[in-house]
Amino acid sequence: MNQPKIRLDEHVRSASEAFQFLKSTTVKERAKFMHAVAHKIESLSPFLLETAHAETALPLARLTGEKARTVGQWRSYANAVEQGIYTEARIDLADAEKGKNDIRKYSIGLGPVVVFGASNFPFAFSTAGGDTASAIGAGCPVLVKGHPAHPQTSQIMADAITDLVQEFGWPKGAFGHILGDHVEGTDTLIGAYLTAHPDVKAVGFTGSYRGGKALFDIANQREEPIPVFAEMGSVNPVFAFSNVLDQRATDLAKEYLASLVMGVGQFCTNPGLFIAVKGAGFERFKGALATAISVVPPARMLNQGIYENFERNRNTLNQQEDVHILSEVLSEQIDGQGCAQVAITTGKSFLKNRLLSEEVFGPFGLLVEAESYEEVFEIAKQLKGQLTATVAGTIDDLQAHRDIIDTIQDKVGRLLFNGMPTGVEVAFAMQHGGPYPSSTDSRFTSVGPDAVKRFVRPIAFQNWPNEFLPEELKNANSLEIMRIVDGVSTAASLKVDID
Amino acid sequence: MNQPKIRLDEHVRSASEAFQFLKSTTVKERAKFMHAVAHKIESLSPFLLETAHAETALPLARLTGEKARTVGQWRSYANAVEQGIYTEARIDLADAEKGKNDIRKYSIGLGPVVVFGASNFPFAFSTAGGDTASAIGAGCPVLVKGHPAHPQTSQIMADAITDLVQEFGWPKGAFGHILGDHVEGTDTLIGAYLTAHPDVKAVGFTGSYRGGKALFDIANQREEPIPVFAEMGSVNPVFAFSNVLDQRATDLAKEYLASLVMGVGQFCTNPGLFIAVKGAGFERFKGALATAISVVPPARMLNQGIYENFERNRNTLNQQEDVHILSEVLSEQIDGQGCAQVAITTGKSFLKNRLLSEEVFGPFGLLVEAESYEEVFEIAKQLKGQLTATVAGTIDDLQAHRDIIDTIQDKVGRLLFNGMPTGVEVAFAMQHGGPYPSSTDSRFTSVGPDAVKRFVRPIAFQNWPNEFLPEELKNANSLEIMRIVDGVSTAASLKVDID
Repeated sequence: MNQPKIRLDEHVRSASEAFQFLKSTTVKERAKFMHAVAHKIESLSPFLLETAHAETALPLARLTGEKARTVGQWRSYANAVEQGIYTEARIDLADAEKGKNDIRKYSIGLGPVVVFGASNFPFAFSTAGGDTASAIGAGCPVLVKGHPAHPQTSQIMADAITDLVQEFGWPKGAFGHILGDHVEGTDTLIGAYLTAHPDVKAVGFTGSYRGGKALFDIANQREEPIPVFAEMGSVNPVFAFSNVLDQRATDLAKEYLASLVMGVGQFCTNPGLFIAVKGAGFERFKGALATAISVVPPARMLNQGIYENFERNRNTLNQQEDVHILSEVLSEQIDGQGCAQVAITTGKSFLKNRLLSEEVFGPFGLLVEAESYEEVFEIAKQLKGQLTATVAGTIDDLQAHRDIIDTIQDKVGRLLFNGMPTGVEVAFAMQHGGPYPSSTDSRFTSVGPDAVKRFVRPIAFQNWPNEFLPEELKNANSLEIMRIVDGVSTAASLKVDID
Repeated sequence: MNQPKIRLDEHVRSASEAFQFLKSTTVKERAKFMHAVAHKIESLSPFLLETAHAETALPLARLTGEKARTVGQWRSYANAVEQGIYTEARIDLADAEKGKNDIRKYSIGLGPVVVFGASNFPFAFSTAGGDTASAIGAGCPVLVKGHPAHPQTSQIMADAITDLVQEFGWPKGAFGHILGDHVEGTDTLIGAYLTAHPDVKAVGFTGSYRGGKALFDIANQREEPIPVFAEMGSVNPVFAFSNVLDQRATDLAKEYLASLVMGVGQFCTNPGLFIAVKGAGFERFKGALATAISVVPPARMLNQGIYENFERNRNTLNQQEDVHILSEVLSEQIDGQGCAQVAITTGKSFLKNRLLSEEVFGPFGLLVEAESYEEVFEIAKQLKGQLTATVAGTIDDLQAHRDIIDTIQDKVGRLLFNGMPTGVEVAFAMQHGGPYPSSTDSRFTSVGPDAVKRFVRPIAFQNWPNEFLPEELKNANSLEIMRIVDGVSTAASLKVDID
């Protein structure tokens, strides 16, 4: 399906118009809308789940959980927005004696944001997902490019938000939804066209490195470059240290496998890499893993394209020098179904061949058997940016390998101790993002209320008349948000002489 | 002067090593260092001022003020860092019943930052300027590329910081200073080489659009793109509305001129553009401006290159169709000295010719005489991103022209009411930056403590043992910083069962 250029332009124009309204809404008004979206999604009929199940092959139980998570996202982001956390109001009062002006700063939306949903999370990272919630929370109109893998699910979600835009009396451009591939009559992808559009001011993306990088490049080459936050996945290495391998290799193998095959391995936080020093502990780990993996049933992947990529990518890895299949599912391969597989290589080969550190989206893990901790240190140094890394170890291991762990820290957004990375909690303290190439900007997150920060910018008002200031900065703090006034945090209203 | 590649690499390697130390310093330790820098600069001998005066032609009084401002910057940033404002500590405690992990997030430095100083602020925006202070505050080692226009001033400042690095026992790579143009034996500029270096993790720049854009492009085309915050100046339009022109055209002309010629117009916030609707008020404004400007004495500009650019750029503008010189200094032109000049054009011509909205660095202003407020609205819409804009008007004007002012707001980092933009206060509420091309990322500022934010990224720790957490996230809040714990702001220590 293609879209005429004129229609895309109309969507953007409509979003720009809506921005003039949205940017002047208060945090309370936006929070109210966001709570309404949460409620609306919560009350959507089972048809939503059935549609998503048909389009993505994700089990109904998983989709039910994801729906609840999505509702929770809207609510928690709304609460944070309402508290004014992202308003970052700062007021420096005038001081005539010191010749100081009255300066007041707060955060305002960047303008229309284009959101690209993900194939693997039809609710939480798609049309009504975290990017949309955080952009709305920031006061930005959203234009969603619906994911082609679940267009009907996307439409149901879009309709729900559109209904609320109307109900709230917001301008219709506050939320737009576009399905399709190309700009009609051209080779230009709709996503590329929108990202290049002068009236689009930011992009949120979850997906592949190739897709994210393409949008990032387009955005930076515009006459006016714009921020793109692309979360592009990673291999999420697990570094297992000697004590834990000595003490609980079998349990660790089970935990690792459970994380690896969860959701047929289709999570950006899938632990695709496992690194440890050779020895008896690692041998036990391998043995337990091989036994456990052989009975994992194959399962349908999200779509044929993802399945084919999985097959191709793991075959490419398995054909590399010094890579051997350790164990795989002992069942007949069925088209479209992902069979879990674990391969193994040496630390030396891993360091030589950069292809081995590429993500294989699906239930594939690569074990790296290092000769020594010196080699593990080299591996940590060579590691690209990751969403997460796990340190499987004991307190003694943490103490003994500070250098390695310090280096791992530089490469990740989230560092886990004895836990597997799948399962990204929606929480204030969550960081979902990380050094490039796991995301395009390590300073931001796409999960947790802090995701709002991606889409706001500060604006300062100097000697601006009180009645024309945004509500967030007026003397009377009617929104009861925390503000830094002359260097001190306070929710108090200001007593300023009216002249 | 050129530098051998091996020496530049050694500087970066040294900075990377220092990062492993700096990233683990607490906010208190960094604040202590920053206060020491402030004290050290404060106590530098008059030789500093004399050197800067000789190198930049800036008057001693101005340099004395800029030195005090620089000291104040280090102090105010130190205080904000110490309070933990940029630590953004968030703690979500474990909840076994809900299956929730213990997740704790804080902000950590990005890594080595390369800082490019500005020609027009040898102290406040150079070697020991705001970028260096904010990067150190963030926990990042700094590598300054000293500005070639004031190398000795830069060296004095660098020596002061280097002494303190030694005194504090910090690794020497915590601060580095490089003078020179090219990488020895190549055409590569040192700045370009450093920005492309894989171990450099961010860039701070103040200067020209051409320079900032070149670094931005290099940074985005790296294998691992890195953030560049470049503040690239702007024309800082003044929009004057009818009531204010009717009531105080003469005073406004004096205020505008004073701002235009301050520091020989060599400020990024120089008001290079003045826009109003034609009429009796504008005529009086022009008359008063012409009288006042004719007696402004010429003054030496920062250096010959800047003087020549000024001459060339204003001549280019004056040669454009429908641009006329309104008034200029009636004194003989002396090589190296900038003579104030104001030209005038029509709204129609301004809208047609985009060259007319380009910054002329120096004491040059362009008046735009619009036919109507509809035309002013069009001008506001066409405006590129600006550091500042001024609305000169009354409350009635604000009321009557909301559409225009809403549009201006979208284009600026700071919006002034009846004030001139020169004079950027170092304050929490300051925003110095703005939509592209005034800066490369409108979400950040380079003045005020919030400048620290450019150089930090969040990292989350999941189930990490308390004793190995950074001090900022431990149960005992020994640094007494504000933290968001389970959604609530608190400075309290946590009572968590030790297992």
